Amino acid sequence: MIFSIDRDVLLDNLNMISHGLPVRTPMPILTGILMEATDNDLYLTSSNVDLSVETVISDKSLEIKEKGKAVVPGKFFIDIIRKVNSKKITFSLIEDRILLIETDKGEYKLHLMDYMDYPTVEFVVLENPLTVSAEALRKIIHQTVFATSTSESNPILTGVNFNLKNNTLTCIATDSYRLSQTKLALNDSYNDFSITIPSKSLDELNKALDQSNEEVSLYFSTNKLLFKFKNVLFQTRLLDGQYPNTSRLIPESYPMTVFFNKDELIESVERVSLLSPHDKVSDRETNYSVIKLEIKNDKSIEISTTNAQIGDAKEEIIPTRLDTTETLKIGFSARYLLDALRCLSSTEVALHFSGEIRPVVVDSEKESELTQLILPIRMD
Amino acid sequence: MIFSIDRDVLLDNLNMISHGLPVRTPMPILTGILMEATDNDLYLTSSNVDLSVETVISDKSLEIKEKGKAVVPGKFFIDIIRKVNSKKITFSLIEDRILLIETDKGEYKLHLMDYMDYPTVEFVVLENPLTVSAEALRKIIHQTVFATSTSESNPILTGVNFNLKNNTLTCIATDSYRLSQTKLALNDSYNDFSITIPSKSLDELNKALDQSNEEVSLYFSTNKLLFKFKNVLFQTRLLDGQYPNTSRLIPESYPMTVFFNKDELIESVERVSLLSPHDKVSDRETNYSVIKLEIKNDKSIEISTTNAQIGDAKEEIIPTRLDTTETLKIGFSARYLLDALRCLSSTEVALHFSGEIRPVVVDSEKESELTQLILPIRMD
Repeated sequence: MIFSIDRDVLLDNLNMISHGLPVRTPMPILTGILMEATDNDLYLTSSNVDLSVETVISDKSLEIKEKGKAVVPGKFFIDIIRKVNSKKITFSLIEDRILLIETDKGEYKLHLMDYMDYPTVEFVVLENPLTVSAEALRKIIHQTVFATSTSESNPILTGVNFNLKNNTLTCIATDSYRLSQTKLALNDSYNDFSITIPSKSLDELNKALDQSNEEVSLYFSTNKLLFKFKNVLFQTRLLDGQYPNTSRLIPESYPMTVFFNKDELIESVERVSLLSPHDKVSDRETNYSVIKLEIKNDKSIEISTTNAQIGDAKEEIIPTRLDTTETLKIGFSARYLLDALRCLSSTEVALHFSGEIRPVVVDSEKESELTQLILPIRMD
Repeated sequence: MIFSIDRDVLLDNLNMISHGLPVRTPMPILTGILMEATDNDLYLTSSNVDLSVETVISDKSLEIKEKGKAVVPGKFFIDIIRKVNSKKITFSLIEDRILLIETDKGEYKLHLMDYMDYPTVEFVVLENPLTVSAEALRKIIHQTVFATSTSESNPILTGVNFNLKNNTLTCIATDSYRLSQTKLALNDSYNDFSITIPSKSLDELNKALDQSNEEVSLYFSTNKLLFKFKNVLFQTRLLDGQYPNTSRLIPESYPMTVFFNKDELIESVERVSLLSPHDKVSDRETNYSVIKLEIKNDKSIEISTTNAQIGDAKEEIIPTRLDTTETLKIGFSARYLLDALRCLSSTEVALHFSGEIRPVVVDSEKESELTQLILPIRMD
C-alpha cells in the first residue's frame, strides 16, 4: 500500500470515522482504523459494538501507487494527522507491518495491527431508501435524545423510537417520568415500521451530520439502520424489543393552559431551583430539584421551593395568556421542565394542566409537531 | 441588618470574594461569606486555610438602613445573585437567622450560619508597603507557577520563592527537574527578604487581578503576605522553611547555543511527542513524554522519539541561528520543554547546551529577565 493525499481531505474523513471508534473495547483491534487503498479509492472504516462508520475517498488529491490494506492505531493516527501542517502526506507500508508517514518536515513510523484480525463489517444493502434532510434529522435528535432513559433497567427506553404510519414519522423518547414526541410528515410513501435507535448512536450521528444540509438516505435491515450522506456510511444497531405504546399518555384536551414567555420562565425556574431540595426519583441516580408551580386567584403564577436546610425561594411570573379560571398547585422536577423548555425554539410556550396528579404537557403553538409531557411529583 | 445595593456591584465583589472560599474544608463555617454592614460600608470576607479575601464596598448604590453581621452560605448566595436580573436587591435579617433577599420579581429566604462561629481573620497591618504593578505580578505568576512542584514530599517547592536583594526581586520556581527564574527591578528601595508563596494562592491572585492595571501594594508579616488593590485585601499564608539555593544551578556561559523560531519548535515537539513513551520521572505521578534532540553535522536539528509499542517519529528543524561547531544528542521531557517555550513571548528562542548530561537552558534575547532550566534524561 502506497498512496499520498491532501492532509485536510484526510483529516475531514478521519474526523468522520472517529465517531465509530470505541471509547473502551474488549477487542483491541477495534481501536484501529481499517484503511484500504483500491485502484481508485481509499476506504476508511471504524467500528464498535453499536456503530460502524465507513468513508470512501475519491478526492483528486488522492494518488494511489500501490493497493493494499492496513489497520492503523486510531487515536495516534488521528492525533498525528491533526498536528501535521504539511499539505501533502505520503503513506507507505514498509517492513513487517509498519506504516511510514512522510510529511514536509518529518517522518513517522507507526506499528500496525494485523488487518486479518479486523472483523468484517456487514453494511445494510443500499436498496429502497427513505430520504430525510440532515436538518430534519438533527431537529428530531435535538428534540428527543435528552428524554431517553440512562438506566439499563429497561434497555428499550435508552433509545428513541422511530415509527412510520401513513407517511408520518413519529419519534418518541421517554424515561417513564417524562416524554418527548415529535412528528415529521414525509413526502414520499414508504412501508410502515417501528424501530428503536440507541440514543448514543443518535448523539454521534448528530455530531457527524454537523452543519451539513444534504439529504440523508436511511436503509433498513431487521436489526440495523444505515444512514448514508456525502461519502459516508453511518450504521447503527437497533435495540431489541417492543417499544411501549405511549399514545394513550398524551391527553386529547386540557382543562387549564398557561402561556409564558419562554426565556422568562426558564430564568425564574433556574433561579428558584437553585434552592430546591434534591430528591431521588425512583431508581435513577441523577438528582432532581423539585419546584412548585401555583396558578393563583389573581391570575399570577408563583414558582417556589422550600428547602429545610438552605432556605426558601419564590418568584412571581405574569403569564402572557391564561386559559383557565381555576387555581392549581403542582410540583415537578425543575430539570425536566428546563429540558422541555430548552428544546422549544418559540418565544411563547404553553403549559397544559389537567390536575395536580396528572401529567403536565409542554408545547408551543408554533411548533405543533412537538409534544412534551412531564409527570408531577406529589407535594406534601 | 438591612441594606440594598446594585446587583452588578455586589456580584463583582462576590466574584472577588469567591477566590477565598474553600473547595473543601473541615470547618463548615468557612463555606460561608461573612457580611458586615457598618454605618457607611459593606464588608465581605471569605477565608480558607491558605487565603483570606476581604472587600469593602462603599458604592453610591449602597443604602444601609440597619447595621449588622451575618454569615451567608457562600455558594448558594453567589449562585442566586449571579442568576438574579434585578437591578437593585434588598437584604434584611429577619426572624431567627434568616436573610430575606428581595428582587424585582421574587424573594429568597436563606438560612444563615452563626456569625459568632466565624473565625477572626487577622490581616497584616497596612504599613510600609512594597508596590508592584498588577501587570508585573501577573507576568511573574505566569512565568513561575507552572514550574512549582505538585508533590508534597518537599513542601517548600510547592511555592514560588520571592527574594529581594539590591532592589531586584528574583522569583524562582522549581520541582527539582526543571526551574524557572524571573527578575524584576524595583524603583523604590526596600529591605531585603526571601519568602515562599504557595502556588495555589498565586493562581487565585492571578485570577483576582484579572485585567486590572492598578498598582498592588504588598504588606509583609512573618508568616503572611497581604496584597492590596482596588477595594480588596487578598492575604496568603507563606510556606515555612528555607528555599534551596538554586543560583549555582544556572551556568554562567554555554558552549553550545541553538536559536529556533519558537512556534516551529513548539509544533515539532508537539507532533513528535505524540509518539513518545511515557516515563515516570522519580516519585511524581504525572507521566512525561521523552524526546531526543540532535545537533547534526549538517547544522540541522532533529527532534525524534522511539516507542517500541506504537512507532517512531522524527522531524528536522533548520535553526534560525547556531552558535556551535559540535554535534550533540540529548534527551529530555517534551512537556517541560513545551512549558518553558510557552511562557516565552518572543518569536525567537534559544536553547543552550553544555553537554548531554548537563541542564538545558531555555531563554530569549528579548526576555533577558527570564531563565529556564531543564534537566536532561539519559538516553540509552
